[in-house]
Amino acid sequence: MRGNESRAQAVIIEKCRRLGFSLDIWEIGEEKLLNHPVFCSDRKDFSGNPNVVGVLKGSGGGKSIILNSHIDVVPPGDRNDWKDDPFSGHIEEGKLYGRGATDMKGGTVAMLLALEAIISSGIKLKGDVIFQSVIEEESGGAGTLAAVLRGYKADGAIIPEPTNMKLFTKQQGSMWFRITVKGRSAHGGTRYEGVNAIEKSMAVIKKLEELENKRNKRITDPLYKDIPIPIPINIGKIQSGEWPSSVPDLAVIEGRMGVAPAETLEHTKKEMIASLEELAETDSWFADHPLTIEWFGGKWLPGNLEADHPLISVISESFENVKKSKPVIEASPWGTDGGILSNVGQTPVVVFGPGVTKAAHDVNEYIVLENMFEAAEIIALTLLKWCEVN
Amino acid sequence: MRGNESRAQAVIIEKCRRLGFSLDIWEIGEEKLLNHPVFCSDRKDFSGNPNVVGVLKGSGGGKSIILNSHIDVVPPGDRNDWKDDPFSGHIEEGKLYGRGATDMKGGTVAMLLALEAIISSGIKLKGDVIFQSVIEEESGGAGTLAAVLRGYKADGAIIPEPTNMKLFTKQQGSMWFRITVKGRSAHGGTRYEGVNAIEKSMAVIKKLEELENKRNKRITDPLYKDIPIPIPINIGKIQSGEWPSSVPDLAVIEGRMGVAPAETLEHTKKEMIASLEELAETDSWFADHPLTIEWFGGKWLPGNLEADHPLISVISESFENVKKSKPVIEASPWGTDGGILSNVGQTPVVVFGPGVTKAAHDVNEYIVLENMFEAAEIIALTLLKWCEVN
Repeated sequence: MRGNESRAQAVIIEKCRRLGFSLDIWEIGEEKLLNHPVFCSDRKDFSGNPNVVGVLKGSGGGKSIILNSHIDVVPPGDRNDWKDDPFSGHIEEGKLYGRGATDMKGGTVAMLLALEAIISSGIKLKGDVIFQSVIEEESGGAGTLAAVLRGYKADGAIIPEPTNMKLFTKQQGSMWFRITVKGRSAHGGTRYEGVNAIEKSMAVIKKLEELENKRNKRITDPLYKDIPIPIPINIGKIQSGEWPSSVPDLAVIEGRMGVAPAETLEHTKKEMIASLEELAETDSWFADHPLTIEWFGGKWLPGNLEADHPLISVISESFENVKKSKPVIEASPWGTDGGILSNVGQTPVVVFGPGVTKAAHDVNEYIVLENMFEAAEIIALTLLKWCEVN
Repeated sequence: MRGNESRAQAVIIEKCRRLGFSLDIWEIGEEKLLNHPVFCSDRKDFSGNPNVVGVLKGSGGGKSIILNSHIDVVPPGDRNDWKDDPFSGHIEEGKLYGRGATDMKGGTVAMLLALEAIISSGIKLKGDVIFQSVIEEESGGAGTLAAVLRGYKADGAIIPEPTNMKLFTKQQGSMWFRITVKGRSAHGGTRYEGVNAIEKSMAVIKKLEELENKRNKRITDPLYKDIPIPIPINIGKIQSGEWPSSVPDLAVIEGRMGVAPAETLEHTKKEMIASLEELAETDSWFADHPLTIEWFGGKWLPGNLEADHPLISVISESFENVKKSKPVIEASPWGTDGGILSNVGQTPVVVFGPGVTKAAHDVNEYIVLENMFEAAEIIALTLLKWCEVN
């Protein structure tokens, strides 16, 4: 789990050693990272849970590629909702279950299988393959940023996040927000003398739903045509009140705001602030007790890859070879470390992986093993074409 | 504060000693109390924070009276909203500020002043005066129940809760509830694949508002004519979500439900359950994922005193002597330990005190000192008439 990635990284490191990669294992957290404008993490201590990069050096003359995956996973939620232990790895009817199975161990394993197939076949690539297993994707990409700042860039990158075998060439950015809502406490028996921060929060949440609606109506990019809410605003947490029979005087709402590929984080922030300021027009409470809006924890830059980039055609071709059909190309409904790789690392990114988006962060998360093997084949073919064979 | 009443009780004990009361100081929590059907507390340990009863034995032949006050107070809420430290006791323009000033140290002091005046005047009463400083009123009345079970009953009782110098002859009962709302988790970027427990909670809260409205329309007792919401349903707490970018799969709402003087707790519970079951009629989510409703922590029995009870006329007469006007007689908008004193202890109760209901549980809680002194005079005159002078 996030904050405790070392045991999972140990498995990755052992696999990389067996495959003969040049290993770079380091604890992130250096000054250059912490002071970078894109750096974003609420984590105080990165020690003991390293980033891992394994390089398969090419013979020269081919294009290089980064294969980027993250090792951290989100918490499992209510354990009673899981059929098995959230970390069981139980396999049933071709699915492997567990937190992180789809987001994104399935993708990580697909990449390692692709590399293992190439290496064990005795094939030598011309371009370098840079395999990355980073921490901190789920809360802002500090692991990938650290890898970029350490000098890892390439002619292209694949991130096998759970796209359900689609190619995501544009990526939604996102950032976390915290809204503090004031009320006025009173005895619950005379609740009409107070102002309930939970009731006021309901107005805030309703306003955010309106804003989400307005923002999504603007999205006309055909890549988003099958996504019900291209840039969602998710209400992830609420906490209010200390005592059942008191009117609560404070509520804290936390969530995640999606950012369109063409938007900047700054523009998106301003739009939310302006929207919430409208609350004061119909309810003077908000004029007298303005909301506090903070941007904390995670933020993910959006990503954009031009439609005719050769990386897209190489992956598409490999896909057709394996699947005998054209891949679906879409824009991702969520942010990935691709925003950092492309914006900070100037590395063109396609997100493509075997997991199902729906299963990510859900209970009974799973990966369809057949998809994982197919993705491995597609990635292997892509490496042969992109990096070229000696 | 609740759970830490010993220092405040020490002040009370010292005062009682000086007034020459027979003191009874004991830690509650005996089997008889814990197994009583009305017992209600989430507190595991009562040790170190005793109940205090001081008896001024009469010479015989007069009516006895219980003067009941509670020593526990609710938490102070957001300390930044307070002008001074919540426990400062700061006095400004005739008001003394601090958590518990109105609920109900003002009333406690008024009673002790009344007794001090009588004792220092050399007056001997015929009836017994039983002064009680109990713990646990704010969370279910275990302190007063323990006093009743220890044998303290009387011909009448005054509880100087903050009635703003009104006489509350009927008392609203109340109880705490906890509602658990299920959702289905998902990645916030594809939030449409999940079901947000916070959104479902908003539907639950809206339903509770409708129920509150329906229940209060039924209240026609003229004693409640000036109370905007005679039996409120207060939403006191909500907690949901673990992660800003996940759809939360669980929300817990806690609150307090008012019970009319003529209602039973059982009837009221059934009405809430039936009302919340209606949610399933318009949203199948609730049919497939029923709410869990628990009744926990505090419960306060409602109280009823017949309009022609002599205790009312004696207090009213004393009020007129001091204030030169008739007292306002109402029904209380909140529960008190009077429900236990009257229902379990068969002791007729009038709630009458100097504090302002609005200030109770609020920030910058205060007591108007002048009211406290007037209440002391009224209580002193009441004791002379009720217990009679030797």
